[in-house]
Amino acid sequence: MKALWLEDQKLSYRTGVPKPEPGPQEALVKVCLAGICATDLELVKGYYPYCGIPGHEFVGSIVAAPDQPQRIGERVVGEINISCGICPTCLAGRKSHCPRRTVMGIVNHHGAFAEYLCLPLDNLIRVPDTVSDDAAVFVEPLAAALEIREQLPIKAADRVLVLGAGRLGQLIAQSLVPTGCDLKVAARYEKQQKLLAQKNVNIIVEEAISENAFDIAIEATGSPDGFFLAQKAVRPRGTLVLKSTYKGDIMVNLSSVVVDELTIVGSRCGPFVPALALLESGQVDHTGLIDARYPLDKALEAFDHAAQEGILKVILELA
Amino acid sequence: MKALWLEDQKLSYRTGVPKPEPGPQEALVKVCLAGICATDLELVKGYYPYCGIPGHEFVGSIVAAPDQPQRIGERVVGEINISCGICPTCLAGRKSHCPRRTVMGIVNHHGAFAEYLCLPLDNLIRVPDTVSDDAAVFVEPLAAALEIREQLPIKAADRVLVLGAGRLGQLIAQSLVPTGCDLKVAARYEKQQKLLAQKNVNIIVEEAISENAFDIAIEATGSPDGFFLAQKAVRPRGTLVLKSTYKGDIMVNLSSVVVDELTIVGSRCGPFVPALALLESGQVDHTGLIDARYPLDKALEAFDHAAQEGILKVILELA
Repeated sequence: MKALWLEDQKLSYRTGVPKPEPGPQEALVKVCLAGICATDLELVKGYYPYCGIPGHEFVGSIVAAPDQPQRIGERVVGEINISCGICPTCLAGRKSHCPRRTVMGIVNHHGAFAEYLCLPLDNLIRVPDTVSDDAAVFVEPLAAALEIREQLPIKAADRVLVLGAGRLGQLIAQSLVPTGCDLKVAARYEKQQKLLAQKNVNIIVEEAISENAFDIAIEATGSPDGFFLAQKAVRPRGTLVLKSTYKGDIMVNLSSVVVDELTIVGSRCGPFVPALALLESGQVDHTGLIDARYPLDKALEAFDHAAQEGILKVILELA
Repeated sequence: MKALWLEDQKLSYRTGVPKPEPGPQEALVKVCLAGICATDLELVKGYYPYCGIPGHEFVGSIVAAPDQPQRIGERVVGEINISCGICPTCLAGRKSHCPRRTVMGIVNHHGAFAEYLCLPLDNLIRVPDTVSDDAAVFVEPLAAALEIREQLPIKAADRVLVLGAGRLGQLIAQSLVPTGCDLKVAARYEKQQKLLAQKNVNIIVEEAISENAFDIAIEATGSPDGFFLAQKAVRPRGTLVLKSTYKGDIMVNLSSVVVDELTIVGSRCGPFVPALALLESGQVDHTGLIDARYPLDKALEAFDHAAQEGILKVILELA
């Protein structure tokens, strides 16, 4: 099959890649659309030494499912963590942290930038007919945005700052609107600002962010500088949520975290079912979030496009 | 009066320092005992550019209180944060984070390594007769230890690691015993280990700390290395509590905080009244925690002693 391949931090478009074979309780999915995420760009920079087919945001259709053939034909999105299900971590309900897990397109499991992928049937969630393919490809990043609300209560009285209004920041902003919180989003680019304004989300320019002015600051810039701005913006005893993963360490003054009694919360993958529900109800709207579409054989151009400053979602069209 | 003086990271013993004058709603306190804390040692290293009399752990007696003369003679300990009481932070109940605060012996307010100190009457808490001076001098650090329980629920099912069994680590360990949690304390020195064993606290050697083996790890080593060991020890979605303040920044991999969805909680000063109550009831016992006593004119020797590895509390005797 045709697939994108990452090896030694080099991406290549390949034909003749073996089509994956579904194992027990797995399904073969024909990929329809796949989204390029900041983590994909970081993988190319060497954030994690992955070798194989990247890609973890997709919508597709089940074309083979030896153990549950009745699911063939289902349009699906897929939870990207493939967990063992039987270790203490899984049994404690923290499956996305299973120490034996693989992660589709990131850790030891081929991803979605290909004609076909395999995932366990339990990972695949049916997409309602009223949710379009274009909307469904946002389920994975929207779930990641929703993880914030799973981790901490966000009250209407909270002053919340979202740093970064790119691919993930836009979804975080939209997912926070229903909480009724006092939300401000730092958006650098005009297009980002326009999209937020359409959703009645307040925009703040970075230069206008005062010290200690927010109860919660969410760092979704994808850049180390975002951490320092978030730390400045959050009040003592406030909460700083980290959503960005990138290559390398940064210098942090932990004593100031102690003196200000900050809480720092790392936040990664989130729940798919509520994400689908928000897209279905229209509470989150993907309109305007897709900046470009490329066929798979133009994937390298698509990656270059996605890496440009201020670009929102770039989609690969597989079928 | 006689006092210890810190200026340009140099400590000196001085006579003829002006005795402080209590302002409105303040009291003059004759210091009886004062304890040397890791923060004092860090101040000498330049952690914060303080100039004046250091010292923030003390027990003493009120000798003047123009606005409440009936309190003269009270034996007291004192809350070290001097807050404005009227700003939004104070009114929100976060007085120890008042942006206009001074902090006794640390930020713009003379401290306890002197014959006399001044504090607002509201900061001074009467010590019950059944609590000795030796016990009372531990109220401030014990309150800091208790702050952890104010910030996060510690359940009996939690596996809790305390890193560091020095001055603060011993108090943290004792304050956690009543929670019934599965507690292990990493203690490097034989004396520290003996003291913990006397309280039936389980000891672990650092080399035996497994990856991801704890739900909560409390970093109280006073050294940057403690952070990395705590991060290793805590499981994904676990909580890392930071109690140490020290000079300088450290390199942190924030992406691993995101991937493991860790929560990092900075923890500083805590509640005095429950700390006094624990000492009064005997649930926390200071016996064995004092390693040495010096008169004020030998304070420089006392500081050298306190800075040695594995040394517990060094006390200055003022009266």
